[in-house]
Amino acid sequence: MEDTIVAISTPSGSGAIALVRLSGLNAWSILDKSFLPYRKSLNINNSKGYTIHYGKIRDGQKELDDVVITLFKAPHSYTGEDLVEIACHGSVYIQRELVNLLVRKGARVAKPGEFTQRAFLNGKMDLSQAEAVADLIASNSRAAHQLAISQIRGGFSKELSIIRAELLHFVSLIELELDFSEEDVEFADRTSLKLLIDGILDKVSRLAVSFDLGNAIKSGVPVAIVGETNVGKSTLLNKLLKEEKAIVSEIAGTTRDVIEDCIHLRGIEFRFIDTAGIRDTHDEIEHIGIERSYAQMNKARIILLIADATAPEEQSLWWVEKISGHARKDQHLAILVNKSDLNPEEAEKRMHRIKEVLASGSNPPILKISAKKGSGMPQLEDALLDLVHLEDLESSDVIISNARHYEALVHARTALERTRISLDTGTSAEYLAQDIREALFFLGQITGEIATEEVLGNIFKNFCIGK
Amino acid sequence: MEDTIVAISTPSGSGAIALVRLSGLNAWSILDKSFLPYRKSLNINNSKGYTIHYGKIRDGQKELDDVVITLFKAPHSYTGEDLVEIACHGSVYIQRELVNLLVRKGARVAKPGEFTQRAFLNGKMDLSQAEAVADLIASNSRAAHQLAISQIRGGFSKELSIIRAELLHFVSLIELELDFSEEDVEFADRTSLKLLIDGILDKVSRLAVSFDLGNAIKSGVPVAIVGETNVGKSTLLNKLLKEEKAIVSEIAGTTRDVIEDCIHLRGIEFRFIDTAGIRDTHDEIEHIGIERSYAQMNKARIILLIADATAPEEQSLWWVEKISGHARKDQHLAILVNKSDLNPEEAEKRMHRIKEVLASGSNPPILKISAKKGSGMPQLEDALLDLVHLEDLESSDVIISNARHYEALVHARTALERTRISLDTGTSAEYLAQDIREALFFLGQITGEIATEEVLGNIFKNFCIGK
Repeated sequence: MEDTIVAISTPSGSGAIALVRLSGLNAWSILDKSFLPYRKSLNINNSKGYTIHYGKIRDGQKELDDVVITLFKAPHSYTGEDLVEIACHGSVYIQRELVNLLVRKGARVAKPGEFTQRAFLNGKMDLSQAEAVADLIASNSRAAHQLAISQIRGGFSKELSIIRAELLHFVSLIELELDFSEEDVEFADRTSLKLLIDGILDKVSRLAVSFDLGNAIKSGVPVAIVGETNVGKSTLLNKLLKEEKAIVSEIAGTTRDVIEDCIHLRGIEFRFIDTAGIRDTHDEIEHIGIERSYAQMNKARIILLIADATAPEEQSLWWVEKISGHARKDQHLAILVNKSDLNPEEAEKRMHRIKEVLASGSNPPILKISAKKGSGMPQLEDALLDLVHLEDLESSDVIISNARHYEALVHARTALERTRISLDTGTSAEYLAQDIREALFFLGQITGEIATEEVLGNIFKNFCIGK
Repeated sequence: MEDTIVAISTPSGSGAIALVRLSGLNAWSILDKSFLPYRKSLNINNSKGYTIHYGKIRDGQKELDDVVITLFKAPHSYTGEDLVEIACHGSVYIQRELVNLLVRKGARVAKPGEFTQRAFLNGKMDLSQAEAVADLIASNSRAAHQLAISQIRGGFSKELSIIRAELLHFVSLIELELDFSEEDVEFADRTSLKLLIDGILDKVSRLAVSFDLGNAIKSGVPVAIVGETNVGKSTLLNKLLKEEKAIVSEIAGTTRDVIEDCIHLRGIEFRFIDTAGIRDTHDEIEHIGIERSYAQMNKARIILLIADATAPEEQSLWWVEKISGHARKDQHLAILVNKSDLNPEEAEKRMHRIKEVLASGSNPPILKISAKKGSGMPQLEDALLDLVHLEDLESSDVIISNARHYEALVHARTALERTRISLDTGTSAEYLAQDIREALFFLGQITGEIATEEVLGNIFKNFCIGK
C-alpha cells in the first residue's frame, strides 16, 4: 500500500482516448514530474481534488502527448488514495510509453484488480461490493447487470450486517455467561435466541438458495435442447440464434466478443450447452442418442425436449417418457412438438398423448412449434422466461450470484443449524458460543471483515488490470 | 452541426473504465435527463465548464451505472462545443446501453471522426492538425509518433501560413495592377517577386521531397531481403524478428495487434515486405529467383542484398551485380556477406570482390554477418538506421507524411514553377495572378482554408468512431 500504482484502465487496443490511472501516496508528485500544465501558474501538488487540467506529458525534452488530467484527493477517490486519471490519445504506443514513463518516475505497474483491492482495504467498499465491480464489468445482459449493480449498492452487505449485529449481540451475552460460569447465570434469553436463530437460518437459507438463480443469471441460463435424431434440434437452435445475431449486429459503435450459442430474452441470457453434440445428427443408434441427451441435460437448468409430430407415435412417446423421467427436480422442462406445420392435427393429438405419458405431478409446458417456419416461437420465448422463475428475482430482496458467497453461506447455515440443535438440547454456553462464532466467521468472510491474504489474492487475480 | 453527437471514445471491448462523449448544443441538457448527481444541489445546466461530478446514470427507474462526468463549456472543449465526458464502468453492456439511452434522450450516434471534424469546423485546429490526430492514434513507433505530434503542434501549418501570407500580399498587389491595367503601373516589384517565388519554391519542394521519408516513417520503412536460394534470407529475417518479439512480449499491460514482420530500431519501424516469397526456398530455378527478387525490391526503400560466403564466387558475384544494378536511385542498398562464420577468410575476400563488381559511383555498405550465429547484427542495425537518412528528419523543420498533403504540394509547386517562368518571360499580370491564386488554392487545401464536403468526408471517414 506504500507503492503508487499505475495502469491503463480503458479496454486494451487503440481508440480515440485512453485513460491511465495512478493511485497512491505519490500519485500527484509522480505526475508532476512529467506533466506540464498549459496554465503556467498551476502547481499540481497544491491543487484541490476534483479538478481537471490540460497540459503536456513530457519525457525529458520529448513531448509524448497532450492530455487532460483529473486529480482526486484522498480519501475522496475510487481507491481512497490520492489518484490521478490521465486521458491521453488512445494510441497503443502512447499508452505504453506513458505507463513506462510513470514507472520510471516512481510508480509500479498495478496488479489485476489492485485499484479495487485498495478501495476495499481503505474501507471504500466491502469485499462483496468489490467482487460486484468485476461482475458488473463482465455482465452482458440486463439481468446480470442489475444483479451486479444491486450488489455494488450494498443490499447484500446490509442484510449480512444486520444478521451479524444480531448474532454478535447474543454471542457476547453468552460469552459473558462464560465469565460467570461458576454462578450459573443466563444473560442470553434462550427463547429469544431460538427465535433469532430461526429467523437468521431462514434468511441465510433463502440467500443460499438464491444462488442457483443468481448464478444462472450471471453466467447465462444453461439450456439443453434434447430429442431423438432428426427431430429438428439444430433447426430450432439456429432459428433462436439467427434472430439474436440480427439484433446484435444492429448495435452500432461497439464490437462484441465472439458470439457464442446464446440468446437474450428480455434481459436474460440463455446459453445453449453442448451444442456440438446436438448438431451431430448422423448417429442413428438410439442408445447413444439417449446417453448423449443425458450428458447434455446434466448441466442444464432448462431442458427443451423436442418431439416430432411426424414421427411414429410410439417411438416419440417412448423418448418423451424416457427423457422427462430423467430430469432432476431442480431442472425445468418444456416439451416442444415440432414440425407441427406438416401435420397440425397430429401435432394437436400428440400434445395430448404426451400429457398422458408424463409422470403424475409433472406438469411441464407443452407447445407446438415449427422450428423451420418459425411458428410458436413467441410462445417458446415466453415459456423459457417463465421457466427461469423471474418472480423469484423480483420478489426477493437479495439474490446472490457468487460461488464464494454461496459456500460461505452454506458453512454459516451448518453452524447455525448446530446452534439451533444445541439450544433445543440445552448444550453448554461454551459450545453455543463456538457455533455462533463460526457462523459469524463465515458470514464475515463474505463482506471481508475476515479475509486472508490468500482469499484476497484469489478474488482480485481475476479482475482486469486497471480496475 | 445542430445535432448533439454521442460515441464511445475508448477502445472497443470491455475494460475497467470506458468513456462516452457527448458534444453539441444540447450535450449538457441531454446528460441532465439521465444523470442524478450525488450532490443534490447540483444543477448541470448552471454548472461551470472544467468541472467533474459524481452520480448515477438512470434510465427511468432503472439504474445503469455510477459514473464520473466531466463538463466542458463551449468554446473551451475539444470540439469547441458544449461537451460531456462520461466515465462509466467498462462493460460492453453498460457502454452500449449508455449510448442507446443518450440517443433516446436526443443525441445522435457520431460518425467516424466527427468530434475532430467539429473541432476543425469550429476553428480549434486546421485540417492538417486534424489529420495528425488520426496519425497520432495510429502511430506505433517513436518516430511516427513524433511526426504526428509535431504536425498537431502546427509546425507545418505555421510554415504554410507564412508562405500563404507572402503570396497573398503579392497577388493582391498584382490584382491591384489589373484594376489600373490601362495605366500600366507595377505595384508589385518583379525583382522582389522573383526572389520570393524562388524562396517559396525551395520550401515547397523541400516539403514535397520530405514526403518520401515521412511516409516511410509513418508506415514503416519497407525493407526487402533478396538473394539467391539458401543464402540465409529467412534465417536473417527470423533473427531480426526474434529479438523484436522478445522485446514486445516484455511490455506488460498492453496487448499488441498481430505482430507483422516488422522490427523497431531506435524508434523507427522497419517493415519486411513480401516475406512469404522469401520463405519459399524450394524453387531452384535461377530465373524465377531473379524475378521474385525484383518484385520484392519494387516496393522497398531499403534493399538488403545477401551473398553467401560459402557459395561459388562467380555465381555469387553474378547475383550481386545483377540485383544491385536493378536498384533504383531512390532505393538504398546494403550488401551482407552471410555465413561468414563458416569461412571467415573467404568472407573477407568476397567483400572486396563484391566492391569491385559494383557499378562505379555506387558505394553501398558491405558487411559480413552470420545470421545463424548472430554476428554482425549490431553493425547491420546501424547500417539500416543510416540508410533511413535520419539526419534529414533531424535537420528539417517539417517532414510531411500525408499523401494528400504531398499531392497538394506537388500541384502548388507546378503552379509556382509556371509563375517563375512567367516572371522571366514578362507575362501579363493577369496570368501571374492566376498562377499564384492556383498555388494558394492548393496550399490552402492542406490546412483546410479551402475544403469541400467531399474532401472532408474522405478525410474523416478513416478516423475511428469517438474521435
